[in-house]
Amino acid sequence: MEFNDWAILEKRVIGWIRKAADHLRASLSNPLEISEKSAHNDLVTNMDRSIEQFLVGKIRDTYPEHKIISEEGYGDGSSDTNGILWLLDPIDGTLNFVMQKRFFAISIGVYENGRGRAAFIYDVMGDEFFHCLSGQGAYQNDIKLSPLTEIKIEDALIDMSTTWLKPNRRIDQDIMTEIVRKSSGTRAYGAASLELAYVAAGLLDAYFTMRLSPWDYGAGLILLNEVGGLYSRADGEQINILSRTSILAARPGLHEYMIQHIKEQVAEGKFLTEPQ
Amino acid sequence: MEFNDWAILEKRVIGWIRKAADHLRASLSNPLEISEKSAHNDLVTNMDRSIEQFLVGKIRDTYPEHKIISEEGYGDGSSDTNGILWLLDPIDGTLNFVMQKRFFAISIGVYENGRGRAAFIYDVMGDEFFHCLSGQGAYQNDIKLSPLTEIKIEDALIDMSTTWLKPNRRIDQDIMTEIVRKSSGTRAYGAASLELAYVAAGLLDAYFTMRLSPWDYGAGLILLNEVGGLYSRADGEQINILSRTSILAARPGLHEYMIQHIKEQVAEGKFLTEPQ
Repeated sequence: MEFNDWAILEKRVIGWIRKAADHLRASLSNPLEISEKSAHNDLVTNMDRSIEQFLVGKIRDTYPEHKIISEEGYGDGSSDTNGILWLLDPIDGTLNFVMQKRFFAISIGVYENGRGRAAFIYDVMGDEFFHCLSGQGAYQNDIKLSPLTEIKIEDALIDMSTTWLKPNRRIDQDIMTEIVRKSSGTRAYGAASLELAYVAAGLLDAYFTMRLSPWDYGAGLILLNEVGGLYSRADGEQINILSRTSILAARPGLHEYMIQHIKEQVAEGKFLTEPQ
Repeated sequence: MEFNDWAILEKRVIGWIRKAADHLRASLSNPLEISEKSAHNDLVTNMDRSIEQFLVGKIRDTYPEHKIISEEGYGDGSSDTNGILWLLDPIDGTLNFVMQKRFFAISIGVYENGRGRAAFIYDVMGDEFFHCLSGQGAYQNDIKLSPLTEIKIEDALIDMSTTWLKPNRRIDQDIMTEIVRKSSGTRAYGAASLELAYVAAGLLDAYFTMRLSPWDYGAGLILLNEVGGLYSRADGEQINILSRTSILAARPGLHEYMIQHIKEQVAEGKFLTEPQ
């Protein structure tokens, strides 16, 4: 049976996210329980788990036939994109959440047979909601976002972590040097879903990272697509939405320029490795 | 005659800044007139000039005997720190102002015979006011900031532009590599006064740059001093508040660790050059 109540889904999800956000805000005065996952700066808190359980519960109760991939594992995982798939991050930017108590987001992207249909990214403390239903325009709160226009590298503000500019396992530290130097400036906010939403909203001109998981970028890519933003892996290949992947998201023109630059650097022998 | 009405000064300045901010916010729907100064990404707009003229006018009318150093040159400049000196930036983070229409600040620091007395840093769009009178506690809006405690590099969130990690005239690109890799993460927001205020507020653990002007850091250093934050040039020397300078501002402990690291790198032959 085809799913066709996207407008009702949007209304419901916005309501669930606002309720989860109220809970998160109220929790900020309580002590957090923090654990390390894969690394010293890969954290999870009791609040990541609690928010994910709440949202997964709502999705399962309302849409029992849908599949869910979520950061803390309360979803059912999935190995294919058939049917309707939710990509859910209860707190994107956990390090910001723990250390700054601001600049973190709840991110939910909904795909149908691999095609982006609905996106929700909510900056909890900034009270800024980026959302869209594909084909119906993207919104920053109540303001409809304009289609992204082209820009030259010299005028571009680029979001990029310092990680990819120093020795690391994924990318030769020199590949992005010329991009950084030619650009108007770089920024780094530490919450991928918001950084992708900022590209969609024209607050940033590009976002680059060598390692993101489906729940980090699922919503952001749908939002970008809606405003004509371009995205791919760092090597220019298409992103598989079930995989950890590199991502270069940018305005048209700038995306082609940056991919071309990376390809030339790789052709000269510099290394670039997708996450496994 | 000794100046002693600091509480009245604080009240006045907060009022002037709020009025200037109202004007700035209202201007965002009008087209900006943008000019380049020293470089492609060193911008000035009609609004920088207009806000500076307004604030300089208020200071001159109210405190004709005080001196003013300000970014766009409507102050009188000054070659010494005798008496009362205002360091004023009408829009810190002009690139953010132009490109993002957010994350810029009005910054005013007031010094008496070279000693910080009053600081005001207002995030115009975020409506967040960092302010203090020295000796009376620092505030983030109405919340009194706590004294900064020590932290290890592994737990630290460090604000640093990518500029200083790639070939540049001021610092060997490898000096900060170990700091970046050992830290919990890096951030870059592109508005020095706010980045210094964030260190004071514990939202960041350190801020590092090789090039700032008195109006960029004048207020931030006063705020930091009030909460026990440490600051110096990158080489550990004292900052001359009339000079363009490098700045390393950090929590106690972390500041010593980072300065020690930089000194060791310089002793090994890597270069570090103060701006002229």
